[in-house]
Amino acid sequence: MKSTLFAVLAFTMVGANASHADDLTQAVNGWRSAHEPEIVGKLDALTRYKSIAADPPGLTAAATALEKELESRGFTADLLGSADAPPVVCASLTVPGAKRTVTFYAHYDGQPVTPSQWSSDPFDPVMRSGPLGADMPAVDWKHAKPPFDPEWRLFGRAVADDKTSIVAFLAAFDALKAIGRKPSVNIKVVWEGEEEAGSAHLAEILRANAAKLSSDLWLIGDAPVHQSRAPTLYFGARGMLGLEMTIYGPQRALHDGHYGNWAPNPAAMAAQLIAAMRGDDGSILIPGFVDGVRGLTQTERSALAHVPPTEGALEQQFGIAGSESKDGLYASLMRPALNIRGIRSGQVGAEAASAIPVDAVVSIDFRIVPDQTVAGVRAKFENFLLAQGWTIVSDAPDAATRRAHPRIVKLAWKGGYPALRSDMTSPAARAVIATASKAAGKPLVVLPMMGASVPIYFFAETFKVPVIGLPVVNHDDNQHAANENIRLQNLWDGIDTYASLMGELGW
Amino acid sequence: MKSTLFAVLAFTMVGANASHADDLTQAVNGWRSAHEPEIVGKLDALTRYKSIAADPPGLTAAATALEKELESRGFTADLLGSADAPPVVCASLTVPGAKRTVTFYAHYDGQPVTPSQWSSDPFDPVMRSGPLGADMPAVDWKHAKPPFDPEWRLFGRAVADDKTSIVAFLAAFDALKAIGRKPSVNIKVVWEGEEEAGSAHLAEILRANAAKLSSDLWLIGDAPVHQSRAPTLYFGARGMLGLEMTIYGPQRALHDGHYGNWAPNPAAMAAQLIAAMRGDDGSILIPGFVDGVRGLTQTERSALAHVPPTEGALEQQFGIAGSESKDGLYASLMRPALNIRGIRSGQVGAEAASAIPVDAVVSIDFRIVPDQTVAGVRAKFENFLLAQGWTIVSDAPDAATRRAHPRIVKLAWKGGYPALRSDMTSPAARAVIATASKAAGKPLVVLPMMGASVPIYFFAETFKVPVIGLPVVNHDDNQHAANENIRLQNLWDGIDTYASLMGELGW
Repeated sequence: MKSTLFAVLAFTMVGANASHADDLTQAVNGWRSAHEPEIVGKLDALTRYKSIAADPPGLTAAATALEKELESRGFTADLLGSADAPPVVCASLTVPGAKRTVTFYAHYDGQPVTPSQWSSDPFDPVMRSGPLGADMPAVDWKHAKPPFDPEWRLFGRAVADDKTSIVAFLAAFDALKAIGRKPSVNIKVVWEGEEEAGSAHLAEILRANAAKLSSDLWLIGDAPVHQSRAPTLYFGARGMLGLEMTIYGPQRALHDGHYGNWAPNPAAMAAQLIAAMRGDDGSILIPGFVDGVRGLTQTERSALAHVPPTEGALEQQFGIAGSESKDGLYASLMRPALNIRGIRSGQVGAEAASAIPVDAVVSIDFRIVPDQTVAGVRAKFENFLLAQGWTIVSDAPDAATRRAHPRIVKLAWKGGYPALRSDMTSPAARAVIATASKAAGKPLVVLPMMGASVPIYFFAETFKVPVIGLPVVNHDDNQHAANENIRLQNLWDGIDTYASLMGELGW
Repeated sequence: MKSTLFAVLAFTMVGANASHADDLTQAVNGWRSAHEPEIVGKLDALTRYKSIAADPPGLTAAATALEKELESRGFTADLLGSADAPPVVCASLTVPGAKRTVTFYAHYDGQPVTPSQWSSDPFDPVMRSGPLGADMPAVDWKHAKPPFDPEWRLFGRAVADDKTSIVAFLAAFDALKAIGRKPSVNIKVVWEGEEEAGSAHLAEILRANAAKLSSDLWLIGDAPVHQSRAPTLYFGARGMLGLEMTIYGPQRALHDGHYGNWAPNPAAMAAQLIAAMRGDDGSILIPGFVDGVRGLTQTERSALAHVPPTEGALEQQFGIAGSESKDGLYASLMRPALNIRGIRSGQVGAEAASAIPVDAVVSIDFRIVPDQTVAGVRAKFENFLLAQGWTIVSDAPDAATRRAHPRIVKLAWKGGYPALRSDMTSPAARAVIATASKAAGKPLVVLPMMGASVPIYFFAETFKVPVIGLPVVNHDDNQHAANENIRLQNLWDGIDTYASLMGELGW
């Protein structure tokens, strides 16, 4: 009961007491408004690195540039990792007299791109005067006088997810220095380059460098703020597990007049498999899948109950008539999810031939919640396939395998890490809530767990310290899709929050 | 009972009496083996016309070339049609003393192509020494001495479906002339250019030119021979109806961590819809869909019972463990079918982003049987969608429509014509079976109905005369898929059959 009361009180008190920005934030804002072109210039330059999984040299170049940014600010910086993984940018700065050490995490890699779907080159950022509309012209920000219109948006891959967090961190650090404010905590930095590919090597790198990375708190600069645009903190994130399934039909495409409804159709088989594992309300029909899902605490339930409702506005924005689930948005996100990311089989449109396709490829991700494990989810899914008569292979089947088994599916699992919901009532948690509220000057949204995944489970598991999410970017940033963008006001707010947590946090 | 006996006897007698080619066929073969380079050269040249729906000028160029081929042989030729449709090549030749008139139908258009899937340019034919294998070299047939190896195959779009029938017709005509044999019937030609796009204008063109096109029999030079490679006749064909469905999700792709299992996923919706309308044995679950399906006659059942079984060999060839239906191949093809030709939603592979796709596109064709109608099938399918809570649109939905309806599907119906099963016991039918059997020198395969569709219903409906399918090409010709090809022996056999029917048919 105590923790529930705390959560409720925190929101109410902050709302009542902090109606405008504090002194530190005012000073930071003053510096920022004079330096907007340089700050946007840094984000523009960072976005030009093609730091996506398909381009390993682009990832290394971005990491090297970030290492230099940190070194130029007095940090001891290093690139950690193995030959197989993009480097982890790691840095530390010891502040005389500071009692606590805080690690700031973000990732500099972006999601894959399908350039044909973008309105501009994903790696040649374009500023526009707002969200992408029919006739939204580009803004020549390089020749504009600051302060910039805070509703302007910069478009590019990874600009929001997560390069804005990185630039907010750097600008906040510069602002504190410019206004003569010493950080209140020792600062460590972990900027990862493999998050969008599932952070397959992160746990191993963290463990190998555990001593170097030890701290009292991790702050996670990933994910968007709440849809109300209110400053947001989150205390956990769903885990995830990627999967690509390939379902095999005839080894060459067959005329569907001569062989249709005799030769098996892999597109139809894929549809039937998807329908067997996912209900039309998004529920997961795989037997035992939700075993071991941990219930929410009273504090967590109370926090959820205080999330401002935005479903109606989102439905309007997304052009949908309603949700597929029966719950509200944030209640839905507390459950595991089975997302169909893509299906490819045969041809459609002008290329559609009347043929039975040779295969069907289905890209999936599972979002998992405490205390589901990656191994447990894999096992339950594979058992479900076996029970439905599927033969599981890991390479394309040879002729003998094709002849022997009527339902063959190739599984390629990708990445995978568990979820985290951390304690919302620890001293560090209380201090972060109080400091961020003070900087924001308005009520925070405090989420027990975010729907999206960041590999923060590893931090909690490896270092046994509080892990709190500190999102910055706008929710309508198109992250993971074409035309990803950052709204400038979110970058400005992010600088304020980072500056307050670097300059005033303590417990 | 009489007609059943007829069918059984026809097969048996032919098998017993005609163990080698007759005189006419021997003479035609002699001419052909000396002229193989010119015959293949004509097929090569005709394949170079890009006569596919995506290329209207290519269709017109092919039609014009064919008109000239016919005129040079003494036919009165013409191009029929409307501005919206590829021309129908129409020609006639009156033979002094001939009592009957036979119309030879084929189509000169080909299926769409996906060039990236081809081993060579679809419109730059390549000869190979057999079916496409790992290291199957090209054959320089232009510098080879005839007779050619009859197992050679020429690869190109439409080379089999139907340009070989057209070339077999022309070569058979030339052969008869060269050996001094006058045709036994008056000859008409209808070569269509819109078959692979659903023959949307054919019925209208036939009706408008009914007097000009009147004859006593239509012979349809489309489709492959039976998988046993035995000469084949068919007395009907399934009808077809194309459909592209677009299912709508959010109007922009959404991060599936932040919105997955809350915002509707169109890929999952498409899968559920497919699973609801098609059983895993290929059965069609749409209520009332099979109402009005006409049963087979005893003659038709008897003919089916005499089709040589090839299922085991086909399963081996296609690399499948078995059929999706419980029936044999030809029994399956007597039923209506719902084929999934392709699905596109979101992204897979390296481009897969963790996002809820904006839509899912499903390409379908229905194969229908007597006495189903196109309008009836459309109505039953649309009623099924409505009963499942779908809102049907014909254009991309606007914002208000998206907000008002949770399940929106855009339907684009394409083409559509009914099936035909014509009388296997008419005098013309008996004469065609006898003449073709004599030329072949071995038992024919006689099919009541082919699984693939050709718009022969229109011929029977418009002209009230017998319609019989006269297939030529190899079943393993990859028609409707990449690397379409014709085996030379099938072209040679086709010339024999066409020559015998032009030179000896009568009743």
